Amino acid sequence: MDIQVCFSPLSYPLFDYKNTIVVVIDILRASSAITTAFYNGVSKMIPISSLEEAHQYKQDGYIVAAERDGLIIDGFDLGNSPFGYMNNKVKGKVIAITTTNGTQAIEVSRNACKVIIGSFLNLNTVIKFLNKEKKNVLFLCSGWKNKFNLEDSLFAGAAAQALINDFEFKTICDSTIAAIELYKLAKDDMFTFLKNSSHRKRLSKLELDRDIKYCLTLNQCPVLPILDGKFLIKGD
Amino acid sequence: MDIQVCFSPLSYPLFDYKNTIVVVIDILRASSAITTAFYNGVSKMIPISSLEEAHQYKQDGYIVAAERDGLIIDGFDLGNSPFGYMNNKVKGKVIAITTTNGTQAIEVSRNACKVIIGSFLNLNTVIKFLNKEKKNVLFLCSGWKNKFNLEDSLFAGAAAQALINDFEFKTICDSTIAAIELYKLAKDDMFTFLKNSSHRKRLSKLELDRDIKYCLTLNQCPVLPILDGKFLIKGD
Repeated sequence: MDIQVCFSPLSYPLFDYKNTIVVVIDILRASSAITTAFYNGVSKMIPISSLEEAHQYKQDGYIVAAERDGLIIDGFDLGNSPFGYMNNKVKGKVIAITTTNGTQAIEVSRNACKVIIGSFLNLNTVIKFLNKEKKNVLFLCSGWKNKFNLEDSLFAGAAAQALINDFEFKTICDSTIAAIELYKLAKDDMFTFLKNSSHRKRLSKLELDRDIKYCLTLNQCPVLPILDGKFLIKGD
Repeated sequence: MDIQVCFSPLSYPLFDYKNTIVVVIDILRASSAITTAFYNGVSKMIPISSLEEAHQYKQDGYIVAAERDGLIIDGFDLGNSPFGYMNNKVKGKVIAITTTNGTQAIEVSRNACKVIIGSFLNLNTVIKFLNKEKKNVLFLCSGWKNKFNLEDSLFAGAAAQALINDFEFKTICDSTIAAIELYKLAKDDMFTFLKNSSHRKRLSKLELDRDIKYCLTLNQCPVLPILDGKFLIKGD
């Protein structure tokens, strides 16, 4: 089985996505928030791209998470801080969510064979699922407004390395090799490695260091969010 | 002065290119071939995107280089092997050139303040020029058919590291940080580092190891190809 890494949703159409499982990655913070939400008992989530749709879902009575540029949009219930999803108010609920990068990446990948959500919080669950499915894999980094970012690439590298070292996966893809090398450099202290990252600086300005440390924690939330039509649901 | 690295011509429009010098990189092999050509006395080059234009230039009596997928197109004079440009036949001549990736990257960057051609063969010349100009810099990796590739990223990392360490440049760009880290890993033996790269495998199949070793040689050709209207000319 082949592994590819796509560094930006903009480049997604260049990759083979037929008969391929796409892993959508937005470490800071949409994919970490979604993983946390399911771990905390959210029933379903509805990933949406536009604020217009978000307003419609709000009018229809849903709990709606809406984030742009790191902040909760006025009038909505949640942003993409994972800590917002750690309370009983979300348990059993359906939550619509739109974010700057992550939900856009989910949108472009809808034509794939299967779409799952990956974060450091569910790394081993993702690896186990991919090994069970035995299909080609495309790691889709959400990036920042279609640009490359480090933290999403590190996750792609972590998962790709495990699949290649421990299972029957391989790669001939330069971006996969780069992601693995970057992860090997960073893995002992990802927080420090990211200290020069533009996105980390952006979040730090918003005093969200606690979020970053949490989002870099391994296997805290062993659940598998998987796309099922318009919903994200909790996979087996 | 700010440094940015763009991993694919597809992403170029996302970057700030006003008041910015763009360094077009296609290590294997267009930017290495162009650097070699000027070092060997080519007078001017005309970078063109399409094979249609290439046929037109051929009809008009020009020497025309035309490469796709690593091979010289039938009926043309040269491909993008640097060794093709190391003979007296090209001296003083104007050569039109179209390649799979590199000349496409030149095409998208025409709206920048200045466009220069970077390769390991003229690394120090590029650095010296950028430091003299004192403008923001965007390293544009040609990649492979709009996908990320390792060798172009390594060159971007090498040049960015030198500009930041030795001169007054800085970066807040994740792709620049990634490129620098990859170069630091690879610099002692880039040929071995690239041994797993898909593009290197593609060239090796075509028995072009000699080209690769040459293209990874530092400062063999201290010239600066610079875009001047429709021509590439030799800068000061």
